[in-house]
Amino acid sequence: MATAPVPADPEADPRVKAVFDDIRRTRRTDFVNNLWRALAFDPTLLERTWADVKALMASPTQIDPLTKEMVYIAVSIANACGYCVHSHTAAARAKGMTDAQHAELLALVALAARTNHLATGLQVPLDPAFDTAQGQR
Amino acid sequence: MATAPVPADPEADPRVKAVFDDIRRTRRTDFVNNLWRALAFDPTLLERTWADVKALMASPTQIDPLTKEMVYIAVSIANACGYCVHSHTAAARAKGMTDAQHAELLALVALAARTNHLATGLQVPLDPAFDTAQGQR
Amino acid sequence: MATAPVPADPEADPRVKAVFDDIRRTRRTDFVNNLWRALAFDPTLLERTWADVKALMASPTQIDPLTKEMVYIAVSIANACGYCVHSHTAAARAKGMTDAQHAELLALVALAARTNHLATGLQVPLDPAFDTAQGQR
Amino acid sequence: MATAPVPADPEADPRVKAVFDDIRRTRRTDFVNNLWRALAFDPTLLERTWADVKALMASPTQIDPLTKEMVYIAVSIANACGYCVHSHTAAARAKGMTDAQHAELLALVALAARTNHLATGLQVPLDPAFDTAQGQR
Amino acid sequence: MATAPVPADPEADPRVKAVFDDIRRTRRTDFVNNLWRALAFDPTLLERTWADVKALMASPTQIDPLTKEMVYIAVSIANACGYCVHSHTAAARAKGMTDAQHAELLALVALAARTNHLATGLQVPLDPAFDTAQGQR
Amino acid sequence: MATAPVPADPEADPRVKAVFDDIRRTRRTDFVNNLWRALAFDPTLLERTWADVKALMASPTQIDPLTKEMVYIAVSIANACGYCVHSHTAAARAKGMTDAQHAELLALVALAARTNHLATGLQVPLDPAFDTAQGQR
Repeated sequence: MATAPVPADPEADPRVKAVFDDIRRTRRTDFVNNLWRALAFDPTLLERTWADVKALMASPTQIDPLTKEMVYIAVSIANACGYCVHSHTAAARAKGMTDAQHAELLALVALAARTNHLATGLQVPLDPAFDTAQGQR
Repeated sequence: MATAPVPADPEADPRVKAVFDDIRRTRRTDFVNNLWRALAFDPTLLERTWADVKALMASPTQIDPLTKEMVYIAVSIANACGYCVHSHTAAARAKGMTDAQHAELLALVALAARTNHLATGLQVPLDPAFDTAQGQR
Repeated sequence: MATAPVPADPEADPRVKAVFDDIRRTRRTDFVNNLWRALAFDPTLLERTWADVKALMASPTQIDPLTKEMVYIAVSIANACGYCVHSHTAAARAKGMTDAQHAELLALVALAARTNHLATGLQVPLDPAFDTAQGQR
Repeated sequence: MATAPVPADPEADPRVKAVFDDIRRTRRTDFVNNLWRALAFDPTLLERTWADVKALMASPTQIDPLTKEMVYIAVSIANACGYCVHSHTAAARAKGMTDAQHAELLALVALAARTNHLATGLQVPLDPAFDTAQGQR
Repeated sequence: MATAPVPADPEADPRVKAVFDDIRRTRRTDFVNNLWRALAFDPTLLERTWADVKALMASPTQIDPLTKEMVYIAVSIANACGYCVHSHTAAARAKGMTDAQHAELLALVALAARTNHLATGLQVPLDPAFDTAQGQR
Repeated sequence: MATAPVPADPEADPRVKAVFDDIRRTRRTDFVNNLWRALAFDPTLLERTWADVKALMASPTQIDPLTKEMVYIAVSIANACGYCVHSHTAAARAKGMTDAQHAELLALVALAARTNHLATGLQVPLDPAFDTAQGQR
């Protein structure tokens, strides 16, 4: 399936080739997954998306790499993006997520969804203690 | 706001009191936040919800406590549960989340939402390499 | 809060007055809740929305009235519409929903959210037995 | 996949045939897409759905046809409805959406998702200036 | 598709076998659907999920079995969980849901989504009459 | 409400001041709305978010300014972001959206939500004609 034309030879476009090369170099693999191939129909969209993914996911930051992948999986599940769940689960496994951690992550996402639905169903009023605006610095 | 009656003195019910006491003991605080007060209208619902939250969030597990709170925040944002975003952000801060980590978590959730919407908008087909069912053990 | 102008005297417009009168007559109450007042800024939108709500919610159909309100609450929770959760919980109570049924409904919605997130997180393949297209009539 | 029985010859039912004929006539094509075939298991549901789609999408209104399809795509992406994303992207292309406009639409939907998640994550309070109820007419 | 390894012979694990046997006994069928097979990669997650589904869905409670399945379908649609929509529609049919009831359920879920989006789009303020916290007991 | 500390004088930080000044210059107004004030707790997050919003929303692109605001509103409604619905509805009005266009936009978003839920509820299979991957260029 696809909603935009996927070029037969996306790397014929030098801007696309530059991004794909950077993906391969950054990730140390020849594999360029379908999201990037799908985005290749518009080099500007491809470049901007990769720049931000690279800055946050492929560079050392405040949060460790495996935690970042777990957060990514969590958001992707809640947003019901099947492709993203698959690709970031694969990435998390490549970064060392064990079966037991994967199972706990899913249990955690499911628990959060459960209390999200309870809190929304009850329309629970905010505790003043949780409001950062109360105690401004 | 609330959709269920919040009893004036919820702890008059011994089952509710037992849960509130366990929340206070487990979290080492006298504060019982509004979600639990709202759930007190049905002691069974209160007991079951707390049992699962305690098992996963207040016990040592495979994933460290701060990461668990970050995943919880991420799911709550994607499910648009304002109460949950507030309460778990407060919990994450209590467990040591810095402003810089909080900012990065939000940037990460926002990045995931962005690529979720791109992948769903493009209806990207799954790469066989991401399908665990391909390489069964 | 509001994003559209709410007329001070919406019933000055005869089309709005006709809908409000029908709401009062159908529901046997003088109370016209804020959703309808908010929709009054465009009589066509008001008329069409009320016509469909009336046809499905205020007329005898295949599904009994309380079940319909419970389904409505469930969808509203999952779509994170606070106003709708409030208004349909009030409507369900007016149609006889007890505290125990309300608690069970919330437990059920939360359970569904939990398995929804598990199934999406696992990307479970469809069992052929569940596919109606398999056994066409 | 399907959850309702798809009749082998849906147009054997005269009500279904009338709707299908109107779809063909309105859209000037012989092609009736699967959503309508799936809805054919209940002629009333089919008739009501088509009546509203026709009124808003296939008639001249305040918003031009291509903008309407773009809004439709945006909502379908955010609601994670793959079928709808596909069918309305095809419709938008048929109405003249270029590759560049498609790419920008996706970038825009992704940007909105990103700031939606930031605003929800930060629980930003409403600016009084944005509240239409403040300055009633 | 799948994101976790599905064991070739899941019942070789006695904890998994115990759950599968209970599923077969409770549902009076030999069929164990894919969600449970997917969860088998972690026996704890499998056991806890089945325990709660059994308690709420396979036992007599305040809400009748068919209504429970309908609510489950409604939440699954709003959360865009295709697998769940399929499996619970099959379950609802097995519990007696007719084509006419199915069509009405879908119309109802669609109506709720429509007014959810209208109320969210208008940011309708809550009517004090709907706030249970106003009139505490 | 807020989950991150809002500095009393955010513009004491020169990076924040630079962004706020650019917002004022770009939008030709002294008003800096709360989203930007909330993001000021992390200058990097503030800078990156504004850079992308400016590039897409405050510059001439393929899609006209009012259409962009309408798409933004649509996504914000479907993602249940109340703040975003409010702020982008105000922006759309400032760019000329009439009451009639606003009403039609809401009707359109509600119609899309309705057919989204129907298509997801029916699990409609994709028509090959809608799959761009079929007819590659």
